[in-house]
Amino acid sequence: MRTYRIAVDGMGGDNGPKAVVEGVCRACEAGDLEILLAGDQEILEAELARFPKVRQHIEIIHAPQSIPMDAKPKEIFDKYPDSSMIKAAEIVSTGQADALISAGNTGALILASAQKIPRIKTVHRTALAAVYPTSNQLNRKDIFCLILDVGANITVDRDHMIHFALMGNAYAQKVTGIERPLVGLLNMGSENNKGGPKYVEVNRILESLPQINFYGNIEGSDLMKGVVDVVVTEGFKGNIAVKTMEGMAEAAMGLGRLAFQKKLIWKLGMMLLSGGIRKVKKISDYQEYGGAPILGLEKLVLKCHGRSTPRAIDNAIKLAVKCARDDLVANTKEAINAFEQEFTHPDYDHITGYDT
Amino acid sequence: MRTYRIAVDGMGGDNGPKAVVEGVCRACEAGDLEILLAGDQEILEAELARFPKVRQHIEIIHAPQSIPMDAKPKEIFDKYPDSSMIKAAEIVSTGQADALISAGNTGALILASAQKIPRIKTVHRTALAAVYPTSNQLNRKDIFCLILDVGANITVDRDHMIHFALMGNAYAQKVTGIERPLVGLLNMGSENNKGGPKYVEVNRILESLPQINFYGNIEGSDLMKGVVDVVVTEGFKGNIAVKTMEGMAEAAMGLGRLAFQKKLIWKLGMMLLSGGIRKVKKISDYQEYGGAPILGLEKLVLKCHGRSTPRAIDNAIKLAVKCARDDLVANTKEAINAFEQEFTHPDYDHITGYDT
Repeated sequence: MRTYRIAVDGMGGDNGPKAVVEGVCRACEAGDLEILLAGDQEILEAELARFPKVRQHIEIIHAPQSIPMDAKPKEIFDKYPDSSMIKAAEIVSTGQADALISAGNTGALILASAQKIPRIKTVHRTALAAVYPTSNQLNRKDIFCLILDVGANITVDRDHMIHFALMGNAYAQKVTGIERPLVGLLNMGSENNKGGPKYVEVNRILESLPQINFYGNIEGSDLMKGVVDVVVTEGFKGNIAVKTMEGMAEAAMGLGRLAFQKKLIWKLGMMLLSGGIRKVKKISDYQEYGGAPILGLEKLVLKCHGRSTPRAIDNAIKLAVKCARDDLVANTKEAINAFEQEFTHPDYDHITGYDT
Repeated sequence: MRTYRIAVDGMGGDNGPKAVVEGVCRACEAGDLEILLAGDQEILEAELARFPKVRQHIEIIHAPQSIPMDAKPKEIFDKYPDSSMIKAAEIVSTGQADALISAGNTGALILASAQKIPRIKTVHRTALAAVYPTSNQLNRKDIFCLILDVGANITVDRDHMIHFALMGNAYAQKVTGIERPLVGLLNMGSENNKGGPKYVEVNRILESLPQINFYGNIEGSDLMKGVVDVVVTEGFKGNIAVKTMEGMAEAAMGLGRLAFQKKLIWKLGMMLLSGGIRKVKKISDYQEYGGAPILGLEKLVLKCHGRSTPRAIDNAIKLAVKCARDDLVANTKEAINAFEQEFTHPDYDHITGYDT
């Protein structure tokens, strides 16, 4: 078995190099892998000094700059050419690493990846996927659900949406181990004539593809229920869905805090429920699922949460190794190519609307 | 003060004529108004027999058909021309009533209203608005928030979105009594360059309009926080936002039920919290706010929740009377006309994209 090499942006995230380095070192303790860690040599050396046992698994790629969390993505190539994120992406682009991990600025990571790492041939749009926990713990093998795109694009063509379905399907197969993940199309109604011509077409094509276990249209109210494993949508819409769920979860926690402070009897109630609340929090813990993949590139890119702790980074690295070992990219390519060949079948219209 | 006349679809809603008639009669007990109640004469008479005191305020408009909740909107004119909903819309269109209320099929009501009731001149798209409760009870006069469009259209042009902002603004002024409601634009980022050319334009125009108290872009995560009074969006996106919130609220309630059943200690905790839960439920009670308006027509149309109880119908009727008395439609027209005149100002580009 070969040793996998993962490029890591050593400076990204709200918790900075401290959290990233600790996560990297934890991952190295657990498995046979090499980390190419991009960032300020001096700062990273100082952090690494805490973990002498795994030091030989980690190579520092010096990058004197780091991209601020609020930097404008479009400006990064001019302003931060020597940043840890861009250097890490370059390492991946030259084939020196199997995957890229960063907890930095999301928009910057999407752009840096798109610019540096080649896209899978015939894929014309990358997708940012998000993983979220659902309330369906009884009926599904995995309680997590993948939704894509959540913001790499604003809007895309019909064929790009089919690619998203195929890419999400391949990823869910590898990561959750579900052989035939259920795929749903986020729409404004469950009937297959909803959402306008593009959505009607996407629904029809997904329905007809043997490689997709298509559930049909789902609505916003189905997201949390976890009726499907993969949700296909466009960036603007996916962004609204994911952020609305985040906002609702925050509001619920805020209500809990308020109840705790406001009345003694409510405080007592919250205390009795604390075991259950901990359980829910554990289920909905973003650190468990290791990061949001950017799909459609020749290498896997994982975006970790800005607030990533060492555990989250550790999990992301393990996930990246698993995807490399299981040949996620090769599988994705195969699925897309098979589709593109079938797509010339008279049942489908001719491919249009590409912006190559 | 003149007597207001409200047309009511007597057969719509999951609870049927029983709930609608009781709601209508409660409203008549409280105020000086007349109800034009469309539906099956015999059924309605039987229900009305329970409320002899207010019988003289109610006129039955016989309509032998009723539109099923799952009927396809496009088929209603062919299949259900003599339905209670279409008859009620016709009464409004002839000027016999000041507003239309129905708890029936949403898509059918949007179509029936659009077909029968004239649109405000220069408004080219009606909008379905939804009212939802926010967690911001401390800083806002009203805890409810209006979001539009949530599904009357799939997507609209820039100028239609400006109209939505003006219509939502006028409605919030009347209904909540806030003089200058804060208006936000639902986007995939808070910066004003987000969301593509159309959204950048809408942001710029709303920013420049003196009649709009524009907050700027908001994200999905801001919806529940109640940072604004009116949220402007397009139908598909608004539909996702509102249904995602619904789904999250259902999931939270499901968790509560699960906790109640699963462990004695959790059951106890839930019992201690029951006062707080009741309070939250009361705040988020759709029956309080009387219905979702369809805006942009010469008369107000209120869509009541399918599960409407008599109280919800009663509140919707009171809201419709208030809007008629406060001249909501005249105010909306004035705002739209003022905008259309200013819009020829060299600061704005010329109006384009209308589909008249």
